[in-house]
Amino acid sequence: MLVVMRVGATPKEIKTTVSAIRRMGLKPNVIPGALRVAIGITGNRGAIARERLEVLPGVAELVPVTKPYKLVSRETKPEDTVVTVGGRHSAVGSRPSKRPSSRKPKAESPKPAVFGANGFAVIAGPCAVESLKGALVVAKAVKAAGACAFRGGAYKPRTSPYSFQGLGRKGLDILRAVREETGLPVVTEAVDPESLEQVARHADMIQIGARNMQNYSLLRLAGQSRRPVLLKRGFSATFEEFLMAAEYILSEGNYQVVLCERGVRTFADYTRSTMDISLVPAVRKISHLPIIADPSHAAGRRDMVPALSRAALAAGAHGLILEVHPEPDRALSDGAQSLTLEGFAELMGSLRRIAAAMGAGPMPNDEG
Amino acid sequence: MLVVMRVGATPKEIKTTVSAIRRMGLKPNVIPGALRVAIGITGNRGAIARERLEVLPGVAELVPVTKPYKLVSRETKPEDTVVTVGGRHSAVGSRPSKRPSSRKPKAESPKPAVFGANGFAVIAGPCAVESLKGALVVAKAVKAAGACAFRGGAYKPRTSPYSFQGLGRKGLDILRAVREETGLPVVTEAVDPESLEQVARHADMIQIGARNMQNYSLLRLAGQSRRPVLLKRGFSATFEEFLMAAEYILSEGNYQVVLCERGVRTFADYTRSTMDISLVPAVRKISHLPIIADPSHAAGRRDMVPALSRAALAAGAHGLILEVHPEPDRALSDGAQSLTLEGFAELMGSLRRIAAAMGAGPMPNDEG
Amino acid sequence: MLVVMRVGATPKEIKTTVSAIRRMGLKPNVIPGALRVAIGITGNRGAIARERLEVLPGVAELVPVTKPYKLVSRETKPEDTVVTVGGRHSAVGSRPSKRPSSRKPKAESPKPAVFGANGFAVIAGPCAVESLKGALVVAKAVKAAGACAFRGGAYKPRTSPYSFQGLGRKGLDILRAVREETGLPVVTEAVDPESLEQVARHADMIQIGARNMQNYSLLRLAGQSRRPVLLKRGFSATFEEFLMAAEYILSEGNYQVVLCERGVRTFADYTRSTMDISLVPAVRKISHLPIIADPSHAAGRRDMVPALSRAALAAGAHGLILEVHPEPDRALSDGAQSLTLEGFAELMGSLRRIAAAMGAGPMPNDEG
Amino acid sequence: MLVVMRVGATPKEIKTTVSAIRRMGLKPNVIPGALRVAIGITGNRGAIARERLEVLPGVAELVPVTKPYKLVSRETKPEDTVVTVGGRHSAVGSRPSKRPSSRKPKAESPKPAVFGANGFAVIAGPCAVESLKGALVVAKAVKAAGACAFRGGAYKPRTSPYSFQGLGRKGLDILRAVREETGLPVVTEAVDPESLEQVARHADMIQIGARNMQNYSLLRLAGQSRRPVLLKRGFSATFEEFLMAAEYILSEGNYQVVLCERGVRTFADYTRSTMDISLVPAVRKISHLPIIADPSHAAGRRDMVPALSRAALAAGAHGLILEVHPEPDRALSDGAQSLTLEGFAELMGSLRRIAAAMGAGPMPNDEG
Repeated sequence: MLVVMRVGATPKEIKTTVSAIRRMGLKPNVIPGALRVAIGITGNRGAIARERLEVLPGVAELVPVTKPYKLVSRETKPEDTVVTVGGRHSAVGSRPSKRPSSRKPKAESPKPAVFGANGFAVIAGPCAVESLKGALVVAKAVKAAGACAFRGGAYKPRTSPYSFQGLGRKGLDILRAVREETGLPVVTEAVDPESLEQVARHADMIQIGARNMQNYSLLRLAGQSRRPVLLKRGFSATFEEFLMAAEYILSEGNYQVVLCERGVRTFADYTRSTMDISLVPAVRKISHLPIIADPSHAAGRRDMVPALSRAALAAGAHGLILEVHPEPDRALSDGAQSLTLEGFAELMGSLRRIAAAMGAGPMPNDEG
Repeated sequence: MLVVMRVGATPKEIKTTVSAIRRMGLKPNVIPGALRVAIGITGNRGAIARERLEVLPGVAELVPVTKPYKLVSRETKPEDTVVTVGGRHSAVGSRPSKRPSSRKPKAESPKPAVFGANGFAVIAGPCAVESLKGALVVAKAVKAAGACAFRGGAYKPRTSPYSFQGLGRKGLDILRAVREETGLPVVTEAVDPESLEQVARHADMIQIGARNMQNYSLLRLAGQSRRPVLLKRGFSATFEEFLMAAEYILSEGNYQVVLCERGVRTFADYTRSTMDISLVPAVRKISHLPIIADPSHAAGRRDMVPALSRAALAAGAHGLILEVHPEPDRALSDGAQSLTLEGFAELMGSLRRIAAAMGAGPMPNDEG
Repeated sequence: MLVVMRVGATPKEIKTTVSAIRRMGLKPNVIPGALRVAIGITGNRGAIARERLEVLPGVAELVPVTKPYKLVSRETKPEDTVVTVGGRHSAVGSRPSKRPSSRKPKAESPKPAVFGANGFAVIAGPCAVESLKGALVVAKAVKAAGACAFRGGAYKPRTSPYSFQGLGRKGLDILRAVREETGLPVVTEAVDPESLEQVARHADMIQIGARNMQNYSLLRLAGQSRRPVLLKRGFSATFEEFLMAAEYILSEGNYQVVLCERGVRTFADYTRSTMDISLVPAVRKISHLPIIADPSHAAGRRDMVPALSRAALAAGAHGLILEVHPEPDRALSDGAQSLTLEGFAELMGSLRRIAAAMGAGPMPNDEG
Repeated sequence: MLVVMRVGATPKEIKTTVSAIRRMGLKPNVIPGALRVAIGITGNRGAIARERLEVLPGVAELVPVTKPYKLVSRETKPEDTVVTVGGRHSAVGSRPSKRPSSRKPKAESPKPAVFGANGFAVIAGPCAVESLKGALVVAKAVKAAGACAFRGGAYKPRTSPYSFQGLGRKGLDILRAVREETGLPVVTEAVDPESLEQVARHADMIQIGARNMQNYSLLRLAGQSRRPVLLKRGFSATFEEFLMAAEYILSEGNYQVVLCERGVRTFADYTRSTMDISLVPAVRKISHLPIIADPSHAAGRRDMVPALSRAALAAGAHGLILEVHPEPDRALSDGAQSLTLEGFAELMGSLRRIAAAMGAGPMPNDEG
């Protein structure tokens, strides 16, 4: 059930309604909109006594929500959600850049990455952070080519317990240094409560990977954090399961969620997984959350990444997350799917032309 | 094995080489290229006595083919194949338009549809041909919007024996009349030897549907026909199986084959099947044949068709085949996935802009 | 719609009802049952005028059929269909065994294989028939071990046009000779109208392979034949599509159809396809037709065949079709999945013990 | 790499070898076998200096392990692992049953459930624990019918954040009371570090569900626990990924792992997921760990559970985990897939007969 408040409802009216919902043993979720506030009601197992709410001052109407997902649905919030990553919004954990320091002259003022609505934002970087020097080479190159955020794994979920598992806390330090020097917000994966706490503290966006898409405890913790979350679709998650995973995050009060299609498991054997391009228009129709694509992991091979990237843009994605490595064949993890620096720059050029033809707004880094 | 002839090899030299291959008990497949001729050798079970061919006049080199597919492979023919449908090339079966007739004033001079290389060609029309009047309404509308060929089922493979199975021979007559009045080449499906013979006689392009992709007898017959063939991928065909199905057609001497991705079976349940967009770059890399997409059947729902169409173009497809119906909800078959006439025109506009941004050549019907 | 006749309805009453249905422009399908006759009505696109049929003498009741499949459904025919292959029923095409001949002393009296109800029947033989001598070695061995029918491909649908395509007509002669010498009914695949005519003439059961499960023209021809049909599930056919394919055969008047699960396409990569064991109880619940399994093609590897065979029996399958070869590693086709003669005999022993524990009737060949 | 010690190698020799491996910067994993000890070496990224180990006293040979999984592989440990759950082995956390109490007269002496080798063990119980009274009704009934362990969810991973999430800690108390009254070991799922700690303390076996199969942090914690672990296959986990998930647990020192096939995601739509029966023989061939099946979750519908249960047994599974509920249609979760008490007892009868026919040892509860 969704309680839609009148345009101009006062904070007091909203507060009264929230209290009334709580007294009914239910959970109110206040959803601020461009014009007016809505309050999603969750926690009910049966019918809700509509009459107790309809009569409250400031309440415009009660709208039943027919889908299992509520807060992520356009029924609840018709306008697009815009998720802003980094920049002014990222005060927590960005302290290093505020301190006077000898490195300051190099520091760039942080500029947020914006996902949603009419924009197209590209996150790029290596699969795993391996060294500060290497990370900076990539970060500067992808920024120059138009990327608006830097990715790099510090905590890596690896199929084998004997594979390189990421640099951990040390990797986060490298990411912070990259942000300080380039001004790019940084995105990195959390794999458990400990790493989530660290990532929320030191990075600008928390990535929840495909393997953890139904790790509901982790989703709840991400929902309790104040950082934007990048949620990847599970290898065989249905559309509904994917939206419900996002619902877990929103239901804890964090509405800053970007969804990401990264390929699903099928019989097809010439790509590592099958990028389900139809998910993009499906999400745009049903949900207000931004949706981006990860062609690098979907294909698992570099030569397909440009075509899939262009396809995602043309299908309506709000952005991409791409793996880029200066020497892909020497990467510690997932080299085969990483673009070279040159390949990335070339791809960005063609994306920019298509985005313009589609009437999409300029890419976030296109100010010149 | 591939015998590459020298640039400027004489017809006699080619003929001699062909005869030598035949005398070895093998089958020569002459493949004319832009610059020179190659001869694919098929039918061998073991090693080929290279020395008997290398010494022949006009032979440049012998190249082993390492893939199970030979004639469809870029190893055999590096340059893109361009498939021309209708127009001057379609003399057979288009006799009606040559005869002086009272309808002549209405008749348009036939203009071929061209698939491959740098172009982007759109086939459009209703799922099934239901009446001449209805077909003409669609044909004129899609032509005006930029389509370069008309589709419409006369022989329909239906899951249920009790469903409408198409108008058959009468449907072909309607298609011919559509071609005569609009100048659009017509594409329609063949489902067995009898319908294939009829389709080859009366239409401009033979469609082999997903259900028959591994109906090898039908593929061989299509290969013996002189008509271009539109081959759809089976519901769960691997990349290799798809190319091998095309190989059946080429191995009979018909090199005019256009491949078509139409969605594959997966667990995903919000589209009828999952459009495997990665197939487009995969085909372009490995094969010289054109590849188009069928978003209507892939999605099974109209609202996703525009996004998937744009994605296919951006991924590098050479064209689309789309279902269009004046009143989709009254269609005898597959109405839910048909675009309206207005929806189609709007989509064509956005495709034209993206194609231009990609540096693709003009769409076949863009002469103004 | 199903017209259920009274117990004891006279042939004349049945005939009158059939005529009445025809006069309504519909198609009557007479389905003889153990106790009474039912008449399935197909061909209707809208409601049927019930009152015109309900009043006829001998008509007990009219039952609406709610599933898209009608004739294959238990709603139409509650009791199990029993399909008898070969033996007395196979007069057509078995002429060779009637002629006095010098080989007569060796000839065995033909014994039918029975599929359905409480029995468990095993078809066994090589993937492709390669020589009479080799076929006889296998046939005698599998008969001794308890197989009740012999399989062997004469017309092989091969992924590559350059692979061995079977001996064709000559292969059928070998199969006939095998039947003559061993008394085993023979089962072989038809791939197009020509081969279907030959197979119907010379073999005891027509196999329609997975690739042709939706080759509706071929299904109709199989329905017009008087031979029992073994219909394999397509690589990605849904339950409903599979039953509808069988419906095509039944709708032409041939009710002697055995269904066969042979594995479906999934992401799983350690077997060639994934045997969908759940299909067995699903078919037994919804349809009256027998269902068997083909573990050889499902797994594609010999070492899994015994476990999958036992699983199929335990899940309720009415039988198996298994590949057996005296020297699997020298087979021209599919050797890796063929059991050795010894492996087959061992497997049959364990199947016999489980069948007994399940209270299944004796296997058809167990008379001693 | 695997270091195989001589038969009769002394504890001191083993200790020396272990120390040598550690000094090389690698991790030794001591694997006690029936006849001799092996030491798996993990943690290496390159070649291992064999010569430093081959010369040590007590070392028989060094065997390279060619699969990505090491400790779970039969290459490392050829003989079947037998996992014992509950009974004497479950001292930790079962303190309540040791205290003198007024309920003592009812208490049954705990009897372990044994998985692996030639036995067949059935875990049964409701999807979620709802009340002690209800749980006891089921537990007594399934014990009487031959189950050897009780299952019941206390922490439920639910697709929707608004669904019943289990009773949590209170559910564990119910499970302990069930064990005390029936003597049945109890199995329940852990979903995060907190619940894992509680489950390890209070239950006899820790279940890791399909959604968490690649939650590597949780797997490591389970590996550090001393409880046996029931690891379910992820919805689309490959064979290798599944074994690698188990490898995470073993690599932390916990070798008491039972694998469980619970159905995979495919296009097939008449069951909730497709039980991949082939996994059973595949695991038995490659790994020494026991493998059981979960037909309730695979099918998602009660009517298929008996057939799939029998199939799993016949395919070689070491046991089953089944959902049973006294009134399935009133269950708070997953009622449609739960057997009734009567249905379960009937199924156990048929399983017992098949197990006997297969020469499997008696089911754990068959002492009379």
